[in-house]
Amino acid sequence: MLRDEKQYIESLRDGRVVYYRGDKVKDVTTHRALRAAVNHASLVYKWQADDDKRGLTVYKDPENGDVSSFFKIPRSSDDLIERFNLIYQTTRFGRGTFNIIKAIGSDAIFALMLVTRRIDSATGSKYAERVTRFYKNVIKNDPAIAVAQTDVKGDRLLRPSEQPDPDMYVRIVERRKDGIVVRGAKAHTTQGPVSNEIIVLPTRAMTEKDADYAVAFAVQANAPGLKMISKPERAAEAAMNDEWFVTGKENVETESITIFDDVFVPWDRVFLAGEWQFAGSLAVMFPTYHRFTAISYRAGIADMFIGLGKLLAEYNGVDDKSHIRRDVVELIKYKEMLRSTAISSAMMADLDTETGIVIPNKVLTNVGKLIANESYMDVVKHLVDIAGGLAATLPASSDFNNPEEKVYLEKYLIGKKGTNAVERARIISTVKEIISSFGALYTAAMLHAEGSIEASVLELYRSYDYKDSKKLAMYASGISEKL
Amino acid sequence: MLRDEKQYIESLRDGRVVYYRGDKVKDVTTHRALRAAVNHASLVYKWQADDDKRGLTVYKDPENGDVSSFFKIPRSSDDLIERFNLIYQTTRFGRGTFNIIKAIGSDAIFALMLVTRRIDSATGSKYAERVTRFYKNVIKNDPAIAVAQTDVKGDRLLRPSEQPDPDMYVRIVERRKDGIVVRGAKAHTTQGPVSNEIIVLPTRAMTEKDADYAVAFAVQANAPGLKMISKPERAAEAAMNDEWFVTGKENVETESITIFDDVFVPWDRVFLAGEWQFAGSLAVMFPTYHRFTAISYRAGIADMFIGLGKLLAEYNGVDDKSHIRRDVVELIKYKEMLRSTAISSAMMADLDTETGIVIPNKVLTNVGKLIANESYMDVVKHLVDIAGGLAATLPASSDFNNPEEKVYLEKYLIGKKGTNAVERARIISTVKEIISSFGALYTAAMLHAEGSIEASVLELYRSYDYKDSKKLAMYASGISEKL
Amino acid sequence: MLRDEKQYIESLRDGRVVYYRGDKVKDVTTHRALRAAVNHASLVYKWQADDDKRGLTVYKDPENGDVSSFFKIPRSSDDLIERFNLIYQTTRFGRGTFNIIKAIGSDAIFALMLVTRRIDSATGSKYAERVTRFYKNVIKNDPAIAVAQTDVKGDRLLRPSEQPDPDMYVRIVERRKDGIVVRGAKAHTTQGPVSNEIIVLPTRAMTEKDADYAVAFAVQANAPGLKMISKPERAAEAAMNDEWFVTGKENVETESITIFDDVFVPWDRVFLAGEWQFAGSLAVMFPTYHRFTAISYRAGIADMFIGLGKLLAEYNGVDDKSHIRRDVVELIKYKEMLRSTAISSAMMADLDTETGIVIPNKVLTNVGKLIANESYMDVVKHLVDIAGGLAATLPASSDFNNPEEKVYLEKYLIGKKGTNAVERARIISTVKEIISSFGALYTAAMLHAEGSIEASVLELYRSYDYKDSKKLAMYASGISEKL
Amino acid sequence: MLRDEKQYIESLRDGRVVYYRGDKVKDVTTHRALRAAVNHASLVYKWQADDDKRGLTVYKDPENGDVSSFFKIPRSSDDLIERFNLIYQTTRFGRGTFNIIKAIGSDAIFALMLVTRRIDSATGSKYAERVTRFYKNVIKNDPAIAVAQTDVKGDRLLRPSEQPDPDMYVRIVERRKDGIVVRGAKAHTTQGPVSNEIIVLPTRAMTEKDADYAVAFAVQANAPGLKMISKPERAAEAAMNDEWFVTGKENVETESITIFDDVFVPWDRVFLAGEWQFAGSLAVMFPTYHRFTAISYRAGIADMFIGLGKLLAEYNGVDDKSHIRRDVVELIKYKEMLRSTAISSAMMADLDTETGIVIPNKVLTNVGKLIANESYMDVVKHLVDIAGGLAATLPASSDFNNPEEKVYLEKYLIGKKGTNAVERARIISTVKEIISSFGALYTAAMLHAEGSIEASVLELYRSYDYKDSKKLAMYASGISEKL
Repeated sequence: MLRDEKQYIESLRDGRVVYYRGDKVKDVTTHRALRAAVNHASLVYKWQADDDKRGLTVYKDPENGDVSSFFKIPRSSDDLIERFNLIYQTTRFGRGTFNIIKAIGSDAIFALMLVTRRIDSATGSKYAERVTRFYKNVIKNDPAIAVAQTDVKGDRLLRPSEQPDPDMYVRIVERRKDGIVVRGAKAHTTQGPVSNEIIVLPTRAMTEKDADYAVAFAVQANAPGLKMISKPERAAEAAMNDEWFVTGKENVETESITIFDDVFVPWDRVFLAGEWQFAGSLAVMFPTYHRFTAISYRAGIADMFIGLGKLLAEYNGVDDKSHIRRDVVELIKYKEMLRSTAISSAMMADLDTETGIVIPNKVLTNVGKLIANESYMDVVKHLVDIAGGLAATLPASSDFNNPEEKVYLEKYLIGKKGTNAVERARIISTVKEIISSFGALYTAAMLHAEGSIEASVLELYRSYDYKDSKKLAMYASGISEKL
Repeated sequence: MLRDEKQYIESLRDGRVVYYRGDKVKDVTTHRALRAAVNHASLVYKWQADDDKRGLTVYKDPENGDVSSFFKIPRSSDDLIERFNLIYQTTRFGRGTFNIIKAIGSDAIFALMLVTRRIDSATGSKYAERVTRFYKNVIKNDPAIAVAQTDVKGDRLLRPSEQPDPDMYVRIVERRKDGIVVRGAKAHTTQGPVSNEIIVLPTRAMTEKDADYAVAFAVQANAPGLKMISKPERAAEAAMNDEWFVTGKENVETESITIFDDVFVPWDRVFLAGEWQFAGSLAVMFPTYHRFTAISYRAGIADMFIGLGKLLAEYNGVDDKSHIRRDVVELIKYKEMLRSTAISSAMMADLDTETGIVIPNKVLTNVGKLIANESYMDVVKHLVDIAGGLAATLPASSDFNNPEEKVYLEKYLIGKKGTNAVERARIISTVKEIISSFGALYTAAMLHAEGSIEASVLELYRSYDYKDSKKLAMYASGISEKL
Repeated sequence: MLRDEKQYIESLRDGRVVYYRGDKVKDVTTHRALRAAVNHASLVYKWQADDDKRGLTVYKDPENGDVSSFFKIPRSSDDLIERFNLIYQTTRFGRGTFNIIKAIGSDAIFALMLVTRRIDSATGSKYAERVTRFYKNVIKNDPAIAVAQTDVKGDRLLRPSEQPDPDMYVRIVERRKDGIVVRGAKAHTTQGPVSNEIIVLPTRAMTEKDADYAVAFAVQANAPGLKMISKPERAAEAAMNDEWFVTGKENVETESITIFDDVFVPWDRVFLAGEWQFAGSLAVMFPTYHRFTAISYRAGIADMFIGLGKLLAEYNGVDDKSHIRRDVVELIKYKEMLRSTAISSAMMADLDTETGIVIPNKVLTNVGKLIANESYMDVVKHLVDIAGGLAATLPASSDFNNPEEKVYLEKYLIGKKGTNAVERARIISTVKEIISSFGALYTAAMLHAEGSIEASVLELYRSYDYKDSKKLAMYASGISEKL
Repeated sequence: MLRDEKQYIESLRDGRVVYYRGDKVKDVTTHRALRAAVNHASLVYKWQADDDKRGLTVYKDPENGDVSSFFKIPRSSDDLIERFNLIYQTTRFGRGTFNIIKAIGSDAIFALMLVTRRIDSATGSKYAERVTRFYKNVIKNDPAIAVAQTDVKGDRLLRPSEQPDPDMYVRIVERRKDGIVVRGAKAHTTQGPVSNEIIVLPTRAMTEKDADYAVAFAVQANAPGLKMISKPERAAEAAMNDEWFVTGKENVETESITIFDDVFVPWDRVFLAGEWQFAGSLAVMFPTYHRFTAISYRAGIADMFIGLGKLLAEYNGVDDKSHIRRDVVELIKYKEMLRSTAISSAMMADLDTETGIVIPNKVLTNVGKLIANESYMDVVKHLVDIAGGLAATLPASSDFNNPEEKVYLEKYLIGKKGTNAVERARIISTVKEIISSFGALYTAAMLHAEGSIEASVLELYRSYDYKDSKKLAMYASGISEKL
């Protein structure tokens, strides 16, 4: 059953423990900064009721009626292409801010469906049923879901069980008849503070000694012992002072350090509890879906960059300059490479025959993700090369509201004849927002969210099937006579 | 009707005028160097009879029986994906050397089918029928086809009609009742000297003053007045001295400067003659197909690079070194980006409703091509970084044949324990061949064949549809309130 | 006579017209945000009295006594190397924020000394004397100086005199007996609002029709008709909410749009007034000095990046990871390339024999500047790759002050054993400051300040002496027999 | 006493054992391919007698009279700048081919002088005297010197003493009263087959178990047991077929695998024999000099690239195209970065107070070397982007000699009006030579000679002094209050 915005917003007033800039937050929905994150997440619910967007964001499930399209289990290449489009378009609807609140949860659920089936086959466990039950509740209750995967890690060179402090990775501290008790902390939980459910996944492969760290489960955001320290939302704060920062005002995602201070999880919500052999499998399957999501939403961001760059080239009247042309083409190249890897990884998807679920092609997804990460800063360079120095030195929107200044600004910030100085300034202002109040987010997220450059490099190196390539090399070298 | 190797080879003894290193070539099929090009082209005919490869290279046309798969008109995304696979695999069969001899001809024919239909619609001309007749003959006679497009150009900043010497672009010097007489020269005609047919296309958009240069046609390779000056085949020549250079010995393509010294072309073989408004359209449509071909064969080359790199990493025992891993991943990335853009441009192909022919997606094809060109040198860097200095300083195969030297070479060129010194040397030797006897070809062809970097940049900049991107930018900037 | 901090600060209370976020600023020295810019500039005066730094920032002039080292006219390569060191070190003293307040003024004065001498020789004018007098006053009165060069430009493809609005470049609107009246606006005037003097230079070469735009002069910051609209100082504002943002709190430079609303300039302060032939010469000479300054201060910024990256590698315990090593080496490479071009351009400086002043080598300076601009974003990528996702998601300093949160943060944000969680967080926080509250400044300034990428490309292409290179190419090609 | 060309050439007829393409070479001076290497080396002797070049290549030593400038011990920054110029210019004299024959020997001798002094101080050995005697003989006898450093290495992950075959690194197999007997093989010995002396250095740091591998010495090229397997000289061979390949005809360096089949070395020529603690020191000191040499000669090569690129831009008439301009500027940037690091590393050289010898600045030298390696392929890309497809498809010089073809080639290969088709073709031909017959050498040598990319990365990472950078980072982060 689809919820509406109000129901979603109301659901957040549940006693959750959230901190912001050193203060305990009374109500995230009315908090000066976090409400921008609430507003952003609520859009997913709004679209479900919106005539224009309903076709994209809702599908009719024969069994369950109207369901959020994010939760549609991919069973074909076409389903994955639809999913790409869903994520791409909703990122555009959010003015370039990805809307994670159902996307990441479904990525996690798909991965859990696949991996728990394998665990059950190997060990006789019954995890898959629990995941199915959880999924059914999800499509029925339509919650906002965050996923907490990245542990805080302590000394990066030591395994979980080797750390001086055993809590550097989330772990089971007690197994009870009715469930488990977990302790530890996860970093970078996007939209955790404004979610209903938090799915927790292991962050890496484990050894037998790390068995207590091989744990996956779901908890509600107001679970006793769960505490979230939100990052400062600079984008939202900056928007309080500048009315032109519309993205910061309305389309922000928050991130938290999510602390599990001995949180109890009943068995029905536990999806992995000690089967260390499968931690790695889950730690790879989830990113495969989530990196597919990543190249999809990043294509949406890139589309905005193309528009900003091309418009500024036109407003500045330098549309015909060869180096500006090259700047714009680099923006196009970035977006189209992401779109290309998304489409091709959907087309070359792997079907899991046991579950009937398709998995995005791992190689093509990681190639897209690698490009998305390693080229991002270069793309910003090209955008700012077009925008010019005003991307740093532009006055504030309030300067344009003061009549004494306005007369000068409208006169002197004009670009090519026939263009509008204020429009030009607003577009530059959007570039400025991207590289300043959104700067830390964009820079660090584009480099680290859904896995770092090195993560994709390792995944590609290890999982690539070199057989045919090697055969060809042997043949080309004349060592073997047949291909 | 499919020809066999012998028929193909026999067909080249037809009095054609070919020069090589200052000598007129009596018989290209027995010429010391050109025979490597003949051998390479003949493989296309051999595969047609080969049980293993027949399924790939031949298709059953309901009307015309067995036809070379290269000539299969693409009518769906799947047809284009098959075409990608055909070109990718046959490049692998040729030890990394693309086999152009039917691929390029079909690229040209598809483009001619589409554009002549448009010309006929606009002007009432009857070109499309001629193209259809030519195509029917092609699938019946199974010729080897070269395409000559790039004019010699003289002063690059002047249009054809502005050049001091009017022959810098191929042009109609006489219109006769039975046909036209053409003059000029085309550069870089791949496999011209070993082809049966040469299709000539204009190289750029034209103005009304350039009408005589708006000319497309097909001639036979032995047409009176046609003269081809072949480039020196260094790869073939080097292979005479080094038995390890198996690609150079067997899989070489030649290129010629193709001179039209007042060549007569009967009307039935003329596909454009003065309709200057359509020269540009043809000059863009052909590259769209041909760049799709390019990213397909380059994926094949890249597959060989992956194999060479990975094998050498293993032979050298440095498979676990992080910088070597990164080298290998760069090779993977290159290939997979090309594969990705090929697949996605097939999936996002445009259907020409009048002809029922599909056209590879222009943006995705050009993005793939741009990457293929601009990243190639970097890819070689990564391959040679793995191969080490021996890629320059390796002794010749004959040194390994001299027992006095062999004892030392087998002792001292060993890599990781358990590997074979001669195999290692042969693989390094293949890298050496790529950067030396094939070096000019690889370097300049990867940068210029099927269009330079700048050609793809311009095409992308001009043809990109910025509408949605701009809308998004206006929306994100708060200038427009709706997306 | 050297001023002290107090004198400097006092001198800013002079009735100047400055706007900030739509408000007229009563007193820049007490303004909530601009006072950070005042504080930063005042350091230059503080160092002059500081025992430790006096040796670096003050020199004893035989004629004039103690003079700021920034104003020392370079007469040898060693002088330029000292100047590099002065700017490099003072940038480090400012926690990575360049201190422009005397550096840019001296760059302008050196350029004016050289070019006015040439104008006087050619035209019989007496500009050089005026520049000398101005310089003497400068070393006597020790003012803070801003330079306004970049015009707002309107349509970038039109010359000054061709613009629809004639005021798009600063111009002489009236020539009076006692001086000139100027109108127009300059963008990006760094520290204009907190300076005493503003030197105005033309931004480009001019034609005869643009003669009124060929104008250079100095005005005092409180000159009637002069109005400065400051950019919002996000770095300073963000620091109000986060005590860890020490750079934003203390070391900020502001930038203004500087409006000349019919400002009168007496002749003695006019250094170019109509000699359009020399506008280009001045527009190139100033950047040569100022780009030398740029590579010097950017080496200082890069030094901070090295330290941040290396420390975080150590705190995170990933100091031995190959990809992290590569990240750090890229930071080193960036700094050392800048240092290298500064030193070599000092060594290969050109001596102007008429004035005895040395000019940094233009080619080496522009090569350094080009690298500084085009590699900056890549350098940030490497820094943030080391820092990890916390560079976006780190809680605020106030979270560390709340005891409820502190216990968790100190436990969970620990890195390698033996390191301190708060120190680690503060260093990450500094990275975050660089990419967020300083983000627009760093990104756009590193790409555009002192000239864009394209500006250095054009300068290099046009001014490079190709003679010897061409000779060598002709010789290597066997066309000429001698080198 | 300076030798002349004849004396040098005569000295090579000394019974040395050299193999070429499987044949034992009777006389390297008359061998069809190796004579190009002899000719190239002989130029160093020719210049010594040449009025024009004598000033550069000869210096007057107060004690020893005329001495080759290559052997001048650097005692000041100016000496190093002179050395840069010597190597830069002589590379230009050799049409872009570095002349190693005295440069590398002197690099080795300087390193030996410094390190043996340290060994002697630490251990009481007398190596330094031997090096001095060897040096005195060198300046007296004026020999051609090769250096053999890179061992064949076997399994790259194992230390010398851990290899399955103990001969994978050159080692002492016997210590006799009169000297040592050595066994093993060195790869990539440039000009070994045409040298008089071969200096052997260890390739890496050693542990105590590797003591027998800690060995340095000098042998004569005809020493019993010494065998050299030359690489095929494709550049020289290709030049036999193309008279335009003047560099290949006259300016080639050969490389050999140099085999020590139990070669006896008398004690007076042994410079390290077991002091394993110093192997690493020598293995780093030599590259510091030799990488300084490398950036110097590569600046010479780059100068040729600039000339080729700029000339072709002009001949093609595309001098004003923005993307071509960018291509040329990339060539300039490459050369000037190398020049810059050479000059700055000379200026910031370290003085060894015990010997009075200056050592090029290690950081700046390695930064230059790193750039030289990692940017080379990109530089070729820019050169070939300008040159166009003819860099692959240009006919041979002999085609231009055949009158039948010549008439077409001269007509159709013309570029911009007023230029000469044959000159244009010859310049393109030189580009072709660089990427084909010289291709393996250029590509692999630019990536691996004098140390790979990874070698410079490791050297920089390990030897960089992070102290001040870290202090700055702590200060900028507010952790420390003083810089």
